[in-house]
Amino acid sequence: MAYRETPMVKQRKLAQKSGLLRAAESLVREGGFAALTIQAVASKAGVGVGTVYRYFNNKDELSTEVFRRATIRELEAVKLALSAELSVAVRLADAAEVFAQRAFAAPKLAWALIAEPVDPAVDLARLEYRKAYSALFEAVIAEGVDSGVLVSQTPSLSAAALVGAMAESLLGPLDHPSCDSLTIVALREFCLRAVGVLYKP
Amino acid sequence: MAYRETPMVKQRKLAQKSGLLRAAESLVREGGFAALTIQAVASKAGVGVGTVYRYFNNKDELSTEVFRRATIRELEAVKLALSAELSVAVRLADAAEVFAQRAFAAPKLAWALIAEPVDPAVDLARLEYRKAYSALFEAVIAEGVDSGVLVSQTPSLSAAALVGAMAESLLGPLDHPSCDSLTIVALREFCLRAVGVLYKP
Repeated sequence: MAYRETPMVKQRKLAQKSGLLRAAESLVREGGFAALTIQAVASKAGVGVGTVYRYFNNKDELSTEVFRRATIRELEAVKLALSAELSVAVRLADAAEVFAQRAFAAPKLAWALIAEPVDPAVDLARLEYRKAYSALFEAVIAEGVDSGVLVSQTPSLSAAALVGAMAESLLGPLDHPSCDSLTIVALREFCLRAVGVLYKP
Repeated sequence: MAYRETPMVKQRKLAQKSGLLRAAESLVREGGFAALTIQAVASKAGVGVGTVYRYFNNKDELSTEVFRRATIRELEAVKLALSAELSVAVRLADAAEVFAQRAFAAPKLAWALIAEPVDPAVDLARLEYRKAYSALFEAVIAEGVDSGVLVSQTPSLSAAALVGAMAESLLGPLDHPSCDSLTIVALREFCLRAVGVLYKP
């Protein structure tokens, strides 16, 4: 007879995995993916390395899962800004602002998520989530073009361009978090110009 | 007495290394960095693997050198467009166009250079060259702001944002090279709007 987990065992395992992922993310917040090792997670979570390996086959798998969890959270924040009951232009600018503000609130994590040189598995997940960001922006840009508040443009291209612009333009400033408010204003303005707002929001 | 290479030996070695790098780049043009292995380079160049290892310690070192050589060539093409005797706006749009046109002319290579999930050493080189691209755009944007043909903005932020926009917006279209001319027009317009051209070029 195959061994079957009781609901309680299952729940305990999920809770332990969550705890390990929280420990892992806190390491990334402090030192990027470079600081994330199976040993460090075990020690942070107060367990043996064997316990960590019970949930993650290797460091790459752990890194990718930390990346996914953190990125889904960022994506949801941007999604929320884009779906507010506000004009298209304000929603686009707010979304860029939310992205940037959250990045400045956790600059090392943001750097790790956006650009830290890391295992190809994380790179692959980056590409996937960039597409998810793009899809969100594309829908709002298309709405703006259709309703005539944005200039005629190719929404898919503009959306991908905005996502690339948001990510790339923060890399320098994240090293100097003191200029965050100026950077955020400059990024808002860049995005508004780029999508060609016809009527001032 | 230490062994010293004669000029002729030195030159022959340089030529052989160049040949290996050309063979390596042609593999990347066909199948991205995924297709680049020491074995494949040796076979393409008609030498033994030992010869390849005489010039490159490992695959990552080879990948990084292929990346650098190809990227420097792209960077020079963009630099040329940015330094033409034309208005600031036209130079910026032309630079984006040159970048895109060259990408569409070798889509697999462009994808490999811009975004293929690959060894962290190449990721690190990507960050470095993104900065080099940014510096070129920043100088021209600053010139445009100073001379009053572009709206007031933070040139460093706009430059990094443009570079991110150019790279990210091509990733989807590179999979469908048939729409290259539409993509290029859309990218030109995005860039011109983003930098806020006050007088039509």
